[in-house]
Amino acid sequence: MLLLFSRNTLLKILNPFFVYFSSDKKLFHELKNILGFFPSNIELYKQSFRHSSIAKHVKKGMRDSNERLEFLGDAVLNLVVADYLFKMYPYKDEGFLTKLRSKIIGRSMLNSLAMKLGLDIMLDSSLDNNPKNFSINGDAFEALIGAVYLDKGYACAQDFILNRIVRLHIDMDEIETKETDFKSKIVEWAQKQRKVLKFNLLEEIGEGNDKLYHVEVLIDNEQKSSSLHYSKKRAEQIAAEKACITLGL
Amino acid sequence: MLLLFSRNTLLKILNPFFVYFSSDKKLFHELKNILGFFPSNIELYKQSFRHSSIAKHVKKGMRDSNERLEFLGDAVLNLVVADYLFKMYPYKDEGFLTKLRSKIIGRSMLNSLAMKLGLDIMLDSSLDNNPKNFSINGDAFEALIGAVYLDKGYACAQDFILNRIVRLHIDMDEIETKETDFKSKIVEWAQKQRKVLKFNLLEEIGEGNDKLYHVEVLIDNEQKSSSLHYSKKRAEQIAAEKACITLGL
Repeated sequence: MLLLFSRNTLLKILNPFFVYFSSDKKLFHELKNILGFFPSNIELYKQSFRHSSIAKHVKKGMRDSNERLEFLGDAVLNLVVADYLFKMYPYKDEGFLTKLRSKIIGRSMLNSLAMKLGLDIMLDSSLDNNPKNFSINGDAFEALIGAVYLDKGYACAQDFILNRIVRLHIDMDEIETKETDFKSKIVEWAQKQRKVLKFNLLEEIGEGNDKLYHVEVLIDNEQKSSSLHYSKKRAEQIAAEKACITLGL
Repeated sequence: MLLLFSRNTLLKILNPFFVYFSSDKKLFHELKNILGFFPSNIELYKQSFRHSSIAKHVKKGMRDSNERLEFLGDAVLNLVVADYLFKMYPYKDEGFLTKLRSKIIGRSMLNSLAMKLGLDIMLDSSLDNNPKNFSINGDAFEALIGAVYLDKGYACAQDFILNRIVRLHIDMDEIETKETDFKSKIVEWAQKQRKVLKFNLLEEIGEGNDKLYHVEVLIDNEQKSSSLHYSKKRAEQIAAEKACITLGL
């Protein structure tokens, strides 16, 4: 009788039984809520939540942290979002698509998505809430995507990213029109806190199209960050973003 | 009778007939040789070979060049290679994997792969063989991967990249051990041509871990290229690579 089912159908039917008797029952259910399905290889998901600060050495120079999964998940996310934007904007050029993608998969967006999914609570880390460690949630989010990809394949990872993340949590119209404007953010903060904020052009390096701008952010005459870019505007934005991170904004 | 076949099987059976009567018969066969299968949507592949120098405007500000496909193909290649390396080196950290990947999907490797596949002959471009245009073949290669992904899906693109490119044309041992050493290459060239080659540190920008090195390459006291990097060694390599390109090496 059972032979009539395919292997996948059989696994789907039996999975709830495995879960019920598993010592990781709680984690299985938490992941079901996030992903929409029960994982097959739970160890991958455990690893995705393991920050390098608490990882153990498994081999010489090799630790069981989430960093390798993050490397893979980053590439999965990159492709899924590229594909989505490619089809969503059939008459926009690659410059537009690249810019929009970088807003979606940028650190601040990934961190905020990770918090929305509750990954910050699930993360195993020995780090405190210092704003300097601000990206560990976003990193774990990428690692989780890597785990889904390895566990269930590309189509499933794509489905998770699009149907559970992009379509639920990302307002494309807002992202499209709104510049990620860290400069305005820090200007506003400085006004509220009555601090003296200054963007300072330290130097211009090179000539013509290859000219680089070296910009620093000063708060009450103390350097908070600096940045280099071929566009002065972009250099200021990057320096402002770094300063926002340092200040925990 | 025909109803017994699935849609995909039917398409597979009928495809050679379509190809035989198609006005693009030649292109179909050339692509079969490269990809290992007949394309379904031939227009995608035509677009992948259309460089922006000869593309037409299809809408205001929008041209039918291969640049959008390149954007997509780049992300596909990125993931397929990440996945391959992740599984090939289970005990190497993400730093190792990132470095190895960048060697495989770097411009010079993509260009050389594109030439091996004969894409340079298939490319529609109004550009001459100026070494400044050196990356158009690699770009078309990425666009071709984008076309395969859209036409046949991720699994097929993965199969094409791994079985027709990576396993046939890339010697992993060689890549792993050999630094892409443009500095040695240009030093050798200068000795042969009896030119005076100099790597010059123009300036050091910033302090501590954020220090940037600005390096130039001089040949017979004439600047050929320059580069900025946090590592002096890397800055020299990048400047050497740029100079190699300018010199057509």
